[in-house]
Amino acid sequence: MAIQELELIENLKSLAGENSLGLTDDCAVFGEYCITKDLLSEGVHFFKNDSPFNLARKAIRVNLSDLAAMGAEPFGVLIGVCLSKQLDESWVAEFNKGLKSDIEEFGFQLLGGDTVFHDAPTVISITALGKTNAPLLRSTAKIGDNIFVSGKIGDSYIGLKLKEQGKTDEYFTNKYELPTPRLELGVQIRSLANACMDISDGLLLDLSRMCQASNVGAEIYSKQIPISESDYDIIDLISGGDDYELLFTSTESEIEGCHKIGKVMEGEGVKLDDSFVEPKGYIHK
Amino acid sequence: MAIQELELIENLKSLAGENSLGLTDDCAVFGEYCITKDLLSEGVHFFKNDSPFNLARKAIRVNLSDLAAMGAEPFGVLIGVCLSKQLDESWVAEFNKGLKSDIEEFGFQLLGGDTVFHDAPTVISITALGKTNAPLLRSTAKIGDNIFVSGKIGDSYIGLKLKEQGKTDEYFTNKYELPTPRLELGVQIRSLANACMDISDGLLLDLSRMCQASNVGAEIYSKQIPISESDYDIIDLISGGDDYELLFTSTESEIEGCHKIGKVMEGEGVKLDDSFVEPKGYIHK
Repeated sequence: MAIQELELIENLKSLAGENSLGLTDDCAVFGEYCITKDLLSEGVHFFKNDSPFNLARKAIRVNLSDLAAMGAEPFGVLIGVCLSKQLDESWVAEFNKGLKSDIEEFGFQLLGGDTVFHDAPTVISITALGKTNAPLLRSTAKIGDNIFVSGKIGDSYIGLKLKEQGKTDEYFTNKYELPTPRLELGVQIRSLANACMDISDGLLLDLSRMCQASNVGAEIYSKQIPISESDYDIIDLISGGDDYELLFTSTESEIEGCHKIGKVMEGEGVKLDDSFVEPKGYIHK
Repeated sequence: MAIQELELIENLKSLAGENSLGLTDDCAVFGEYCITKDLLSEGVHFFKNDSPFNLARKAIRVNLSDLAAMGAEPFGVLIGVCLSKQLDESWVAEFNKGLKSDIEEFGFQLLGGDTVFHDAPTVISITALGKTNAPLLRSTAKIGDNIFVSGKIGDSYIGLKLKEQGKTDEYFTNKYELPTPRLELGVQIRSLANACMDISDGLLLDLSRMCQASNVGAEIYSKQIPISESDYDIIDLISGGDDYELLFTSTESEIEGCHKIGKVMEGEGVKLDDSFVEPKGYIHK
């Protein structure tokens, strides 16, 4: 069956209220708060044998990355887990430690949760709340803006490929297993950025979403995109998921610690160097 | 392994902030908002062959019931679903219709969500936000208060038993499949109730939780508990889950439409008629 028909949220867009921002942003915004919710399912988003300590932290961090994209500071989290009955005590203890570690590291409250045990693979559902009075949106990129990313693109793709091949290179597998939400940067660029989002499904696909939301096009230049040396094609690296870097536009020509990769243009679509590219990305199906 | 060791949330209580209300209430409260999150897993909370239209509505309603328990009005919802790849288009369409129907019926916004497809049983995760400036808590029952319930107890237990035996009696199976969140009542009793919660795991267990949170005991009288005629023992009916009626205490001696079932006492534990009873309840394990 066609993906469109399956996308519940897509089908419910008519019910989206003003606080949902049309369901196109990383969070919904109400008052000074913003809220996001992500599901991670074993076999889709993580491997059965992933470290439970890191898995708990990744589940938290992909949500914190959505808060970072809005320029928000983390406020609280609700944690729902359907745990496979096959898991043992030490798995649960390590998972718990991971949750605790990140709640302490990023300094927010545990607000609630739900634990279920079932005869099925593990599913983790996190809801994260953040606070900001000046939320950054993805729909407000302006023609002429420079386009920035906050760090290397594709390292997580390399990490996933290594993992799939049973190989390890800590640098790359860490990038895949344990993203770093760019919370401080999100707050710093509140007044500098015109539009912002996090890169979760690949730079190309996410940039094309930003363009669509902003009614603009974009040109990016392969030589300016920060990537690691590898045997992979740049198209694969910028189409892989799980980067969790910020992608934002600004009239500034330089932003410390960030990489200028291109320009917002009139029109639509994304050009890499001189050619339009298909916005491939990592969609979990 | 011991349940205590598995209860993630129990183990994380030290991380619960002031807005979590100690993780013992139906919602966390921040500003004028309250928030709750529940997971429903196929094979644990619902049957594979349940009507997808009603299942969607039940998933929404168990969360709305938590809002009702706080005296809150529904504001918005985030919907996360991990759908089994075995489901067909018509299932998804019916599930969608159910979500839409309840969002419209109860008048709140869709704020966001996440759809995942996996080779595993379906898991539904709802996060609901409500608004109230005067949240009702379960920790504030006062000695001498009367104890009320908002409707019949145990009908859902009877419905579940019928379903398990492959029998149907619409009245009872509807009670199990499609609870009615007591949202209007929750708002009405804001100024009348001292303590309130919803009954999701059985009257006995939930009343004992309220007593524990409030540092009080309770006496209830079997003749005053509204139950349907059946072959089941009253202990079974008041220990079954999924009632989603409100349980509250008040100095009032009568509250329209509600049933006075007992009194808040000094001490601890719950007495049924003249004897202390074990707070059995429906815990999903």
